[in-house]
Amino acid sequence: MKLATLKDGSRDGQLVVVSRDLETAHFATGIATRLQQVLDDWNFLSPQLQDLYVTLNQGKARHGFEFVPSMCMAPLPRAYQWADGSAYLNHVELVRKARNSEVPASFYTDPLMYQGGSDDLLGPCDDAPFASTDWGIDFEAEIAVITADVRNGVTPDQALDGIRLVMLANDWSLRNLVPADLAKGFGFFQSKPATAFSPVAVTPDELGDAWQGGRVHLPIHVSWNGKKVGMCEAGPEMTFHFGQLIAHIGRTRNVRAGSIVGSGTVSNKDWSKGYSCIAERRCIETIEDGAPKTPFMAYGDTVRIEMRGKDGQSIFGAIEQRVVPASA
Amino acid sequence: MKLATLKDGSRDGQLVVVSRDLETAHFATGIATRLQQVLDDWNFLSPQLQDLYVTLNQGKARHGFEFVPSMCMAPLPRAYQWADGSAYLNHVELVRKARNSEVPASFYTDPLMYQGGSDDLLGPCDDAPFASTDWGIDFEAEIAVITADVRNGVTPDQALDGIRLVMLANDWSLRNLVPADLAKGFGFFQSKPATAFSPVAVTPDELGDAWQGGRVHLPIHVSWNGKKVGMCEAGPEMTFHFGQLIAHIGRTRNVRAGSIVGSGTVSNKDWSKGYSCIAERRCIETIEDGAPKTPFMAYGDTVRIEMRGKDGQSIFGAIEQRVVPASA
Repeated sequence: MKLATLKDGSRDGQLVVVSRDLETAHFATGIATRLQQVLDDWNFLSPQLQDLYVTLNQGKARHGFEFVPSMCMAPLPRAYQWADGSAYLNHVELVRKARNSEVPASFYTDPLMYQGGSDDLLGPCDDAPFASTDWGIDFEAEIAVITADVRNGVTPDQALDGIRLVMLANDWSLRNLVPADLAKGFGFFQSKPATAFSPVAVTPDELGDAWQGGRVHLPIHVSWNGKKVGMCEAGPEMTFHFGQLIAHIGRTRNVRAGSIVGSGTVSNKDWSKGYSCIAERRCIETIEDGAPKTPFMAYGDTVRIEMRGKDGQSIFGAIEQRVVPASA
Repeated sequence: MKLATLKDGSRDGQLVVVSRDLETAHFATGIATRLQQVLDDWNFLSPQLQDLYVTLNQGKARHGFEFVPSMCMAPLPRAYQWADGSAYLNHVELVRKARNSEVPASFYTDPLMYQGGSDDLLGPCDDAPFASTDWGIDFEAEIAVITADVRNGVTPDQALDGIRLVMLANDWSLRNLVPADLAKGFGFFQSKPATAFSPVAVTPDELGDAWQGGRVHLPIHVSWNGKKVGMCEAGPEMTFHFGQLIAHIGRTRNVRAGSIVGSGTVSNKDWSKGYSCIAERRCIETIEDGAPKTPFMAYGDTVRIEMRGKDGQSIFGAIEQRVVPASA
């Protein structure tokens, strides 16, 4: 099934069930009003939402209305956890190669993850406000999952059972603030502002056989100012699957329902597939020509991130955001 | 006023108002059932809780009952953000000195913070379960605040107005996992398991003149296995006050209501004040004798963290935890 959260002026928005073709929505009132509520009590509430989803897809739901992605908040407008991996090692290899350093061998066996802020997540069509374009504004197209309760110490295979929903993420990054953050030794902080998510979150069964072993085997399409810049395959080159990422978090603590776990920038060894973040393009330019030439984003720039199934149907709806100045 | 969250089998527990002397509690039913709800709508709900608090302190509340700290969850059992600073530079200086490195000059002007996990916070008397004592189990006694909505770009002084509640934290740390985490460059991850918080969270006015300029001017008492090991002054040596820490988070994003912000390990230049984490004791031993001799915690070890007002009254109640093996 497909779920979304509509803006209603409240902090957590209003839960709706969305039809498979993303044309129609239906309030989940009477079942649940907020997505976190569903994640807290999944086994009881999700079958009821699934029934409504079936009825909606059959065109038999009485109070369906047009689904408008720009009316969406993030499926979870605020979450108790946002832990983001860097599971496409090609991305790490490019970054390292551009600065003439090696990828440590352990990076191929031990996932790289950072803890992100999750108190203020952006809707799919929300403007992305930044106080300065000197910060090196960049998008990052990613896959993300929302978890069930997953116990401390689980194996990666067990952790796969803890995946409730899948969505897309735009992990906004401020590249020129990264060096100062990382030099302090405690990881990203100011360089990772609010992240945006796709209009709908879907259960893994919506992906059909594109969902295999905790990976999504479909290309992620990225356009920058209307120009297609990326169509990287999200499946084969994801070094660590989502079960491995969740188990990595769970090594020393519990992972609680509603945790969002990200894949990191989708990245392919085949440069002709394009890029899911500008930083990667700049790395390639540095490797090829000695210096980057593609600038980061300017005010007014837009980015669009979408994934289509083998039938051509948009699965999650599109993230479509514009960079704007932060209001003083 | 003083607020706590009682265990009731639910994920968010039950909000209670607690008397100033920590003897009596009263359900906040009819006003709010969860602390996050109060933070979401502070201006409307907090005056009602304050009225109940006054009545409770006067001994006139009809349904008061004995307040039992071991029945408490963390004031926020799960939160949308847990961002922890390292605001006592003496701690950083000791760690660096023990490994013969300098503190970068920028550390005195730019706060050091990390993003922690906030989906699973521990109650004040909950056991702290770890799968291995080889991980280097350590406590960290800290002050923490809970914020209102604080807008992107605020000044440190403006951010002070965004402090709703103050509490104590025990930021459990797995010292032997720190080097591997930090070597990867993305900051703490597996080395920072679930954090515990004091039984009650209090409004800053409860601290009287000990609350000055975003700092708590009182000693924090730490006992390890019943032996007093720390009584560091939390006020004068906090290099960055809480307004500065909140503004640091808010430089590139909004800080939303219910964010928890920590001070980092309370630490004093005067070594006779003791220590708020074992790592610091080990640094001093390394500086004095060339090697650490105090071991980290073993299964069965206990830690107690408490702060008393000038009248000798416990302000937040005590964090009292025992280290136990994680169940398989």
